[in-house]
Amino acid sequence: MLGSTHGTLTTHSRPARVVACGEQRPHTVHGISEPQPGDGGQGTGTVDRDVSGRPLHAPVPDLDRFFRPESVAVVGASDSEGRPNTGITRQLIAWAERVGARLHPVNPGRAEVFGRPCHATVADLPEAVDLAVLLVGDPLPVIEQLGEAKVKFAVAFASGFAETGEQGAAAQDRLAEAVARSGLRLLGPNTNLNAFEKFRTDLDGPAIALITQSGHQGRPVFSLQELGIRLSHWAPTGNEADLETADFLSYFATRPEVGAIAAYVEGLKDGRSFLLAADRAARNKVPVVAVKVGRTEAGARTAASHTGKLTGADGVVDAAMRQFGVIRVDGLDELQDTAALLARARKPTAEGVAVYSISGGTGAHFADLATAAGLRLPTLGDARQAELHQWIPDYLSVANPVDNGGHPVGDWRGPKIIDALLADPSIGVLICPITGPFPPMSDKLARDLVDAAERTDKLVCVVWGSPVGTEDAYRDTLLGSSRVATFRTFANCVTAVRAYLEHHRFAAAYRSPFDDAPRVLSPSARKARALMRPGQQLSEHAAKQLLRAYGIRVPREQLVTSAAAAVRAASLVGYPVVMKASGPQLAHKTELGLVKVGLTSASQIRDAYRELTDIARYEDVPLDGVLVCQMIERGVEMVVGVTRDSLFGPTVTVGLGGVLVEVLRDVAVGVPPFGEDQARAMLGELRGHALLDGVRGAPPADVDALVEVVLRVQRMALELDGELAELDINPLVVLPRGEGAVALDALAVCP
Amino acid sequence: MLGSTHGTLTTHSRPARVVACGEQRPHTVHGISEPQPGDGGQGTGTVDRDVSGRPLHAPVPDLDRFFRPESVAVVGASDSEGRPNTGITRQLIAWAERVGARLHPVNPGRAEVFGRPCHATVADLPEAVDLAVLLVGDPLPVIEQLGEAKVKFAVAFASGFAETGEQGAAAQDRLAEAVARSGLRLLGPNTNLNAFEKFRTDLDGPAIALITQSGHQGRPVFSLQELGIRLSHWAPTGNEADLETADFLSYFATRPEVGAIAAYVEGLKDGRSFLLAADRAARNKVPVVAVKVGRTEAGARTAASHTGKLTGADGVVDAAMRQFGVIRVDGLDELQDTAALLARARKPTAEGVAVYSISGGTGAHFADLATAAGLRLPTLGDARQAELHQWIPDYLSVANPVDNGGHPVGDWRGPKIIDALLADPSIGVLICPITGPFPPMSDKLARDLVDAAERTDKLVCVVWGSPVGTEDAYRDTLLGSSRVATFRTFANCVTAVRAYLEHHRFAAAYRSPFDDAPRVLSPSARKARALMRPGQQLSEHAAKQLLRAYGIRVPREQLVTSAAAAVRAASLVGYPVVMKASGPQLAHKTELGLVKVGLTSASQIRDAYRELTDIARYEDVPLDGVLVCQMIERGVEMVVGVTRDSLFGPTVTVGLGGVLVEVLRDVAVGVPPFGEDQARAMLGELRGHALLDGVRGAPPADVDALVEVVLRVQRMALELDGELAELDINPLVVLPRGEGAVALDALAVCP
Repeated sequence: MLGSTHGTLTTHSRPARVVACGEQRPHTVHGISEPQPGDGGQGTGTVDRDVSGRPLHAPVPDLDRFFRPESVAVVGASDSEGRPNTGITRQLIAWAERVGARLHPVNPGRAEVFGRPCHATVADLPEAVDLAVLLVGDPLPVIEQLGEAKVKFAVAFASGFAETGEQGAAAQDRLAEAVARSGLRLLGPNTNLNAFEKFRTDLDGPAIALITQSGHQGRPVFSLQELGIRLSHWAPTGNEADLETADFLSYFATRPEVGAIAAYVEGLKDGRSFLLAADRAARNKVPVVAVKVGRTEAGARTAASHTGKLTGADGVVDAAMRQFGVIRVDGLDELQDTAALLARARKPTAEGVAVYSISGGTGAHFADLATAAGLRLPTLGDARQAELHQWIPDYLSVANPVDNGGHPVGDWRGPKIIDALLADPSIGVLICPITGPFPPMSDKLARDLVDAAERTDKLVCVVWGSPVGTEDAYRDTLLGSSRVATFRTFANCVTAVRAYLEHHRFAAAYRSPFDDAPRVLSPSARKARALMRPGQQLSEHAAKQLLRAYGIRVPREQLVTSAAAAVRAASLVGYPVVMKASGPQLAHKTELGLVKVGLTSASQIRDAYRELTDIARYEDVPLDGVLVCQMIERGVEMVVGVTRDSLFGPTVTVGLGGVLVEVLRDVAVGVPPFGEDQARAMLGELRGHALLDGVRGAPPADVDALVEVVLRVQRMALELDGELAELDINPLVVLPRGEGAVALDALAVCP
Repeated sequence: MLGSTHGTLTTHSRPARVVACGEQRPHTVHGISEPQPGDGGQGTGTVDRDVSGRPLHAPVPDLDRFFRPESVAVVGASDSEGRPNTGITRQLIAWAERVGARLHPVNPGRAEVFGRPCHATVADLPEAVDLAVLLVGDPLPVIEQLGEAKVKFAVAFASGFAETGEQGAAAQDRLAEAVARSGLRLLGPNTNLNAFEKFRTDLDGPAIALITQSGHQGRPVFSLQELGIRLSHWAPTGNEADLETADFLSYFATRPEVGAIAAYVEGLKDGRSFLLAADRAARNKVPVVAVKVGRTEAGARTAASHTGKLTGADGVVDAAMRQFGVIRVDGLDELQDTAALLARARKPTAEGVAVYSISGGTGAHFADLATAAGLRLPTLGDARQAELHQWIPDYLSVANPVDNGGHPVGDWRGPKIIDALLADPSIGVLICPITGPFPPMSDKLARDLVDAAERTDKLVCVVWGSPVGTEDAYRDTLLGSSRVATFRTFANCVTAVRAYLEHHRFAAAYRSPFDDAPRVLSPSARKARALMRPGQQLSEHAAKQLLRAYGIRVPREQLVTSAAAAVRAASLVGYPVVMKASGPQLAHKTELGLVKVGLTSASQIRDAYRELTDIARYEDVPLDGVLVCQMIERGVEMVVGVTRDSLFGPTVTVGLGGVLVEVLRDVAVGVPPFGEDQARAMLGELRGHALLDGVRGAPPADVDALVEVVLRVQRMALELDGELAELDINPLVVLPRGEGAVALDALAVCP
């Protein structure tokens, strides 16, 4: 089967159902641990939820007995030559021996299998096994028996479920329901033997734990063991009828032997469970590195046809990962290199990077790529440079990058230079790119670096640039060290080191947004609900009342239904004014000529009133009146909105208005829950964010007020989830610092 | 020495001198071939130049006898144990034997070296050798003797020149002058043995020729021979006192055995000679792949301190490379993979890419990265899909990516599937990513792909995703084939395939801009020169006259010096008008309040005149008058300008006006000479180029008129080179299609 095709419940796109699933499962069954003190758990009696009804806490499934069972049943075990199950049974027996588990074959047609007594059914098992591996074509009938026999975990290899289409998806639904009733936890269907592979046990130190939605895609990470990188677990999640990526993420984040989690993800079963699992990893400071398919339409489409999973809108997935510190990479090679580094490297003592090479060209090239990626190469102090010049000729630059010219590597000076660089307090990472093997130098250099790495807590990285890769200095010296991180390309070294520094910066500052997420409705929500009109787009006037309910400032304005009232309104609002037609289904007002700006007199107002109502009549647009609004002339135009994502529910977007959002789609997304820091970080992601600092002599904009609007919109999105399909404040004018932000126009759609 | 530190003339930043150098060298000396018929040569009598005085043609140096000499002298040869020259002499003897050259040791202190008769000086040599390798500390005194002895080429290994600072640079200047007088061509100083390494001679087919400015940085490409990729030459250019990167580029582009040129470049000695060499390669359809350091300030600074070479403004270098089809990559691994593919792959028959894998996950992931990079994966036709479904189960997608589910690989179906994909006329490239070795499948798949590649002219690529790389299927099967392109990462495969398709598209359409570059001054230049004021910034009025001289439209406007004249001017120009102060040193007019827009009456004009002149008096700004200008209200605001680049001379920039250029620096650069197609391509590079197509109901802009302005500005930049330091048209308003473009304001600075 190879696990190359699998799918989840097609119903995962209905969040209500997913939440319900969670509720069906009592919190006292096998395989669900009590929440850990201090990790955000809220007790087991009731599920703690935010105002939108989404859980604020997910228990960590206790998968110890899944990965290290004491006893295992193999249902469908066989030892007849030529049958596929025979090979699998053989591998499972070998695995059980390795992990010290008792293995019980189950097969009604056999008395023994490979010399072990074979039982006819699960009910006949001599003990309540931890794990049942189901090699049968249809696992459904077995599930109930397993539940009765108090089996904790099952794995179903069978394919033919969601990955094959609608009928298969229905079968998978029935399987999921049986599992939920049974009290056991299921991996699969349509998974494979990856969890039971032969792991190297001779490697120590922190390990990578691997989660994949495709067996093939995990193979390169698994193969890292051949390069000396320890792997502790592999969870091939298959169709995720029950156990999903998030469950393993959250379990691995609590395992002491796990230094980093590597994941290959095509689609997520549920957005919230993923966020909660990522939050667990962030709280526990366990780095998560992930490849997530779906950068492009084509990729998303192919992944969907492969697994039946939704890839989610890519920008939203990207934002969610960034908010919770998940390091997203594009290639499996980056996944390997980054996870390996993050698993094994100690916490940095400084963020500065020193680049050291036997060639000035190599140093210049590496420095170029490293600084382009945002790494910082501090210029070494005069004293340090003088020290280095004891061993390195004066005409070579040792400012950083440090070029030794080659010769010092060959003798006693080599280790001195490395130690001097590692002793510098501004340096947390030493990187030595060795582009080509030149054994008299490169072998000695590799050995010196490996030795120096043993004497320091700082990170030592080597790039072995030869495309050949069979050299002894690489295979034996460098890969033989668990203290040196060895890369094959400049790019992957830069990517991994950047992720390493960012992870530790993120982890040190992390504060879970789930702790502060709103649990009860605000008074704003009650006011806002009164404005909702199911199935309709609200008028501009109503949409602005909605904003006011959440304390978001709108211009002084009045809704009028006569020219005379318009003139009275204008004198209350204050000249000059803007007049706009307001009606429930009205969009593109400017294009229709339904906005008049800069009106400075009563006669202009009367003319404008007549013109607006004439156009509305001509265009057959029903109006609830004409808005007479205060005119706001200065400030930076932004857009702030709410969009529903199929995976994560309501999300908040913010962007720079005008041409930047229209032509360049320069927007940032926030996935609730997020706090003030993250709202501020969203602004930093905008390519045009310098506009907020003030350009061409403009004063800096009131960013605090903008952040406050983003947070209030988030609250609104959560409280009105299900009642508000879409909100678009465009423009929100951000005034100079200290003066606030004003929503000039808004569009709100009720589902 | 390792060639790790070297530098060129520090004087390379003075273009005048570089041009003069070219002139000093008569076109009849050794080592300069006659221009090839039909390749843009203009005969040898006079150097063909454009209006700016830059050459339009560079002869191809004949380096045959450098790389394959019949006789070689080694000056400073030694066979005393322990001396560095002894090792080098030994390597040179071995090399001379391999290439069949007679080798003559030269050393006044020895009668023979390694059993060969040794001569005291070059004058004593028994024949006029093709090449002299100088192992002496100071090559300068030897150069004259070499010239007298009619030696064609010399190589100087000595270091201590421009790479060590000012004194060294002066010594290098003297060396360069001696070389120019002598009639020989010199490689170095501060170069190394790379050109004389042991190349594999058992490989055939098109080869890579390598040029590097750092020996270490070339080593990985050289090592490709161990993976079966043929290398024909390696030119380590060292300090480039004479022979430079461009000379080798242009020579390699004429060699039949060279399939692609790979270059590692830190700085360029002369911009124009690089462009002419790249033009030669483009005319000859020889792909050039280059790493060019200098993406960042830090990289540029380090490269400069390493070699003394200017890296050039990176955006300009980038534009120059793109215009002449040089494929710029960031990493040495990309350089290797891209050059290897381009050297060996045949011309594509179609641009469509088919992705084929034994796992739907792998296919989805690869498709995602490939489409994000712009590769096109055409959906296979129904008939083709039906054909594939003969061998692949129905529930798997074969639309492209094609997922075979694994099993068909193991039997007779495997080759059928591959052949069916290669038979599809929409497909020019087949890519098979194999992420993990699973010998029962992957070994057979690798073998099938190698066999299929022998039966087709189409490109077959394999990604061997295992990080281990010692597997037989990789080392023997895949690397053993010269017909399959094997990669180790998805990313490098995508980069190389994109470069392959782009190169062939570029080469098919290439028309040399040197053929159409202006050779004589236009009448515009005479008019324009009368306006130049050395050392000054021109007034807006004068700058606009300059534009008019080149046929660039400006608004109807008059320069007036009284309020009454302003009113008269307004009625001629037509209301509404704009009024602006005009003076020679005036910038930031808007910020100073020196611009009044939308004036609609004589009284407004009189008020405005008074106000402008009052402000100018208050700010102490000398005016040449007040401009009364036609007001242009519609159109897309652009900026077009001329900037001087230290390497390439005048360059033309174009960008979208307003916030896009101010905040996002969204500009494109053109390096002269460029034609209409390239001017049009510059607009396509702008991130905000959709604005020109018309957004929010705006009509499409007159792009043809914009392109015409860019070309006229180029002509101006060339004709006024040395007289015009800077030009900035901001804004140039591009009107709706058919209505032209108008320069509303311009700033011109004379040097």
